[in-house]
Amino acid sequence: MQDLISFSSDYTKGAHPLILKRLTDTNFCQQDGYGTDGFCKGAADKILALCDCPEGDVFFLTGGTQANQTIIDMLLKPYEGVVAADTGHIAAHEAGAIEFSGHKVLTIPCKREEMKDGCAVYSDSIGKMDASKLKALIENFYADANHEHMVFPGAVYISHPTEYGTLYTKDELTEISGICREYHIPLFLDGARLGYGLMSKRTDLTIKDIARLTDVFYIGGTKVGAMFGEAVVFPKGVPTGHPIPIIKQHGALLAKGWLLGLQFDTLLTDDLYFEIGKNAIEMADILREGLLKKGYRLFIDSPTNQQFIVMDNEKLKELSKHVRYGFWEKYDETRTVIRLATDWATTGEDIDKLMEFL
Amino acid sequence: MQDLISFSSDYTKGAHPLILKRLTDTNFCQQDGYGTDGFCKGAADKILALCDCPEGDVFFLTGGTQANQTIIDMLLKPYEGVVAADTGHIAAHEAGAIEFSGHKVLTIPCKREEMKDGCAVYSDSIGKMDASKLKALIENFYADANHEHMVFPGAVYISHPTEYGTLYTKDELTEISGICREYHIPLFLDGARLGYGLMSKRTDLTIKDIARLTDVFYIGGTKVGAMFGEAVVFPKGVPTGHPIPIIKQHGALLAKGWLLGLQFDTLLTDDLYFEIGKNAIEMADILREGLLKKGYRLFIDSPTNQQFIVMDNEKLKELSKHVRYGFWEKYDETRTVIRLATDWATTGEDIDKLMEFL
Amino acid sequence: MQDLISFSSDYTKGAHPLILKRLTDTNFCQQDGYGTDGFCKGAADKILALCDCPEGDVFFLTGGTQANQTIIDMLLKPYEGVVAADTGHIAAHEAGAIEFSGHKVLTIPCKREEMKDGCAVYSDSIGKMDASKLKALIENFYADANHEHMVFPGAVYISHPTEYGTLYTKDELTEISGICREYHIPLFLDGARLGYGLMSKRTDLTIKDIARLTDVFYIGGTKVGAMFGEAVVFPKGVPTGHPIPIIKQHGALLAKGWLLGLQFDTLLTDDLYFEIGKNAIEMADILREGLLKKGYRLFIDSPTNQQFIVMDNEKLKELSKHVRYGFWEKYDETRTVIRLATDWATTGEDIDKLMEFL
Amino acid sequence: MQDLISFSSDYTKGAHPLILKRLTDTNFCQQDGYGTDGFCKGAADKILALCDCPEGDVFFLTGGTQANQTIIDMLLKPYEGVVAADTGHIAAHEAGAIEFSGHKVLTIPCKREEMKDGCAVYSDSIGKMDASKLKALIENFYADANHEHMVFPGAVYISHPTEYGTLYTKDELTEISGICREYHIPLFLDGARLGYGLMSKRTDLTIKDIARLTDVFYIGGTKVGAMFGEAVVFPKGVPTGHPIPIIKQHGALLAKGWLLGLQFDTLLTDDLYFEIGKNAIEMADILREGLLKKGYRLFIDSPTNQQFIVMDNEKLKELSKHVRYGFWEKYDETRTVIRLATDWATTGEDIDKLMEFL
Repeated sequence: MQDLISFSSDYTKGAHPLILKRLTDTNFCQQDGYGTDGFCKGAADKILALCDCPEGDVFFLTGGTQANQTIIDMLLKPYEGVVAADTGHIAAHEAGAIEFSGHKVLTIPCKREEMKDGCAVYSDSIGKMDASKLKALIENFYADANHEHMVFPGAVYISHPTEYGTLYTKDELTEISGICREYHIPLFLDGARLGYGLMSKRTDLTIKDIARLTDVFYIGGTKVGAMFGEAVVFPKGVPTGHPIPIIKQHGALLAKGWLLGLQFDTLLTDDLYFEIGKNAIEMADILREGLLKKGYRLFIDSPTNQQFIVMDNEKLKELSKHVRYGFWEKYDETRTVIRLATDWATTGEDIDKLMEFL
Repeated sequence: MQDLISFSSDYTKGAHPLILKRLTDTNFCQQDGYGTDGFCKGAADKILALCDCPEGDVFFLTGGTQANQTIIDMLLKPYEGVVAADTGHIAAHEAGAIEFSGHKVLTIPCKREEMKDGCAVYSDSIGKMDASKLKALIENFYADANHEHMVFPGAVYISHPTEYGTLYTKDELTEISGICREYHIPLFLDGARLGYGLMSKRTDLTIKDIARLTDVFYIGGTKVGAMFGEAVVFPKGVPTGHPIPIIKQHGALLAKGWLLGLQFDTLLTDDLYFEIGKNAIEMADILREGLLKKGYRLFIDSPTNQQFIVMDNEKLKELSKHVRYGFWEKYDETRTVIRLATDWATTGEDIDKLMEFL
Repeated sequence: MQDLISFSSDYTKGAHPLILKRLTDTNFCQQDGYGTDGFCKGAADKILALCDCPEGDVFFLTGGTQANQTIIDMLLKPYEGVVAADTGHIAAHEAGAIEFSGHKVLTIPCKREEMKDGCAVYSDSIGKMDASKLKALIENFYADANHEHMVFPGAVYISHPTEYGTLYTKDELTEISGICREYHIPLFLDGARLGYGLMSKRTDLTIKDIARLTDVFYIGGTKVGAMFGEAVVFPKGVPTGHPIPIIKQHGALLAKGWLLGLQFDTLLTDDLYFEIGKNAIEMADILREGLLKKGYRLFIDSPTNQQFIVMDNEKLKELSKHVRYGFWEKYDETRTVIRLATDWATTGEDIDKLMEFL
Repeated sequence: MQDLISFSSDYTKGAHPLILKRLTDTNFCQQDGYGTDGFCKGAADKILALCDCPEGDVFFLTGGTQANQTIIDMLLKPYEGVVAADTGHIAAHEAGAIEFSGHKVLTIPCKREEMKDGCAVYSDSIGKMDASKLKALIENFYADANHEHMVFPGAVYISHPTEYGTLYTKDELTEISGICREYHIPLFLDGARLGYGLMSKRTDLTIKDIARLTDVFYIGGTKVGAMFGEAVVFPKGVPTGHPIPIIKQHGALLAKGWLLGLQFDTLLTDDLYFEIGKNAIEMADILREGLLKKGYRLFIDSPTNQQFIVMDNEKLKELSKHVRYGFWEKYDETRTVIRLATDWATTGEDIDKLMEFL
């Protein structure tokens, strides 16, 4: 497959060269295990400063499912579930990892189609949780006289960008956060692609806003320049007494924890994380323009690094000889929705090559 | 801490330089995700050939707790527990990761002290499961008329080397394996330090023997030259229909799975894994000789890379200014048992420096 | 509350007098524990004969949530979930008991309103799983290239009567059963109110049909004449090797198991279970006629013992001084949907009294 | 088996006739469900008064495994385990119900044999947790620098009487309680046979002492005169915000909860519970005297309703034609330890008959 150019996802390459260089430079410097080393400390300090939450706690985990499962289990009491969009990763694509930890995912319908120019496309809010629906779910729960026989809404999960590349506005996140605080329900933001969300030209949300409005979120590394790793931030501190045994119990405590600390330390030095996030956005913008120029219909007008288009199956067959793309869903008998994702390392040359085949 | 020399454990350094080189060389070659890439395929093929089990299955996981938890959950039915030495890692030091998955660890006492030259030391079989005790546990279970109210012994867990650096002989492993097969109970061998065990000068067990005598084992990478990773081998194939969702459900499916495949492919090329394992053994042998020459008492006469000695607390205080060691346990009011571990990258120079302070 | 007449549910009274009599008669006859007694054996034999499945297995559990949780856990592999109507008891009202056992409930929308005489009422299929939607869910799952990252549909749960008192026809159940068998997915029928469903005048399903078309179901006792208890029937035998430890592990193995056996033995002697089921249906029919005569609108035209009507809130206030009813849901600002349930012991006199206040 | 006289256990008969009478008398009085009825309220009030803990909470569950599992899950955080004697019911005979809820049972060895008159018998403290061993376990845990990788001791479980019929003295319970409070670890006392323990002639512990010294305990009904049921008492109130959904989630919320309330209300009226407890003790005392007179050796000098003797296998064969006994364990090649249990309904005539065959 190395002969094909791949736009199938944003986790097809290794790590930013600066990370590889530091891994090589420090390879024989012996480190303490399990995240008690200096790199983790340094990276955590940088993150807390960046997020303006000096009282916060930071943990480094290796991947998204692991982070989602462990964080949600930290937030919930046994009889509580987590509220999520029905399109959310934890609802649809974690192989039941949340239920494996004993918790229900309470879903809110978030997939809406609308007609544009006579064609069905997704609404611009696809993948986003509607604050009013969240409020209704919580209020209906407490209004039900029988609610002690039901699953309590114990946390709210959103992703930013969402699985469809869409973004919450500051107003939207503020509203969701307000509802959560009103009902004392912690808000968790999955930031597997946070770098791309923060650098979108169509966002008014900063990382400080996110730290202020949520109770826990993570800065995704796996998809944004790290070899692997997610930096989990509890802006107001971790709510559970002993996070380490909980992390260990989920098989999520990396022996050589410093590998994670070092990567995030590197990404957070000289704004590297943001610069490479910006690259993906700029490449996606060029791609989108090119797609529109060629007459493709955007299935979602995504402001981040994932672009979704409707494509004829015949054309797609041809494309697949040269390019790896992400199959998204069947549109109708003759057309398919595909995803094209740029990333931290995509070059203008890559886009040019891709456009040749489109 | 980078100024101190560390013999505290075998996971204080990064990865073998050849691994770093290949990671760098392939950094921008785009790969398929979740272990479906070519490196994983290649590494798996090499492992199956090495182990002489062409019908086997191989999975790559990131760490030991994760591997232990996931494998045991694959082997057991809900009403079954796993039999282990009470000194076994899963019994004592996994923060309840096995119970978190719903399974009891049924323990067999394996810690015995004996007197040598008027002093208490551990017996040479410390950490090893006694075949006759295993047989007794299983037979007593089935003999108990009430056993449907008890936890069924559903798998047997051993580690090789054990947590105390001791090794099973081929006869011992054959006997344990025979009992397991007699009762149709799968045998799982934790090989977090397998490379060091296989290269010990005092072992008659080969990796082919292990593949033949067990139902699943792993080739430890984290502690033997890899940056991270454990290669899980089911010599007769995986017993469960769908391993991938189970792995994912445990948060153990690495998005960039090829990072694991590439590391094991490197370690298994030109016997690298065995050569670096041998290095740790040779360094440990030099260390042991030096210790004995200096009059230290070996707390266990370990044939692998972990050496355990009894040290005066005063002396230890001094040592800790120059050397990082592993605290093992209190010996008496004035003495402490410590662990000194060599690894794949330990040099003669390191040992010389260490000996200066001993 | 004993002064009010109660139609709030069908579990407000003790047990059929014959059961009380036999409990009293046998009170000092010593029995073996945990369901190994003769009453359990006798009741199981009667059930298997009644259901025409001599190879089947029968277990007795104390209640519905317990039965649902234990059975589903018996049917599913760890990475599988259970498909249910979104109105199903396990989806909405078990406090997360299914997820507590590690399994997701995969829901199919089953709540449909339609307009009748200018008013919104539920469709007659409310609460019932649509076979075509079930087929679509399974097919979409397997068609998804990414389905190993999703929760496998591992069992199908339906209730008969449903939570809304509706009933599957023989054709409908045959179709659902056919889909399940095509995909090798066991079909589980929650029969908490089975006696009322079987005796409805508008059903063509017999208990033999149910035994033939499902893989497991239960004959509800708690709501149909027993003091407590559900008889779980696996018509083709229990699929798991050791059901007893699984039942015990769920805290569901009653020490004095014969109490359950004796109750079902009594209910299944001389068709008692069916006769008292019939009583509830006849009383419900009289009630329904009375309601229609008084001009009430049936919110669902339920063929079983639960009747749902729309009532003015003012009228309801008055009613609640004399009668206990089940609050179902808010209809609009001035009206409420309530449930009136008859049971095995409801008398014509009870209905007369109720009608006075309606 | 109804022809044989049974001393095999204390759960072979139905319920005290007064309970049956009240069940019959109230059979058609309609009650609210799920323990919200008046009988449960009345019984709870009586229990709190009896235990002198007006701020306490009471719940009614159906059986012992269920109570143990649910209570322990209420007490523990996910990373905590429960400390128990290795002979404790939760350690040995719950089919892994505790681990099924995700928690490890941390065991303390409590089985000691000693020589008496040249024969091995159990020490009088068998089955009891030694306070000093408990303290050592907790202190060793916290002293271990690595304890965040281990299972935290989060609750202590003892049974009174123990599984061997032995009893804690007030001093012993006070000492255990003191250790628990020093380390802020809740103490849970399994009182499945509490009635027999409280009425032993060799106890100085009252139910008020138990309520004062523990954080949760239960008053066993199943084995002491109830048809079924255990009254769970949290003398200082339940520590978790929402006990009902937790109970429901364990399948332990009985729909007709009043059946439990009514039974305990009956048992706690006019000291019935204590009177019938006393009967079992008196019968056991007569039995013990008879046994000693006939030259049997008491394997344990049990002060409660369970008596353990060593019996020749030949003699046992003969006995089993007339009497049901509890097999306890093999003593040696020719002898067996058996248990003979009296109960709330044992009569002098029963003992006479039994003695005939001994």
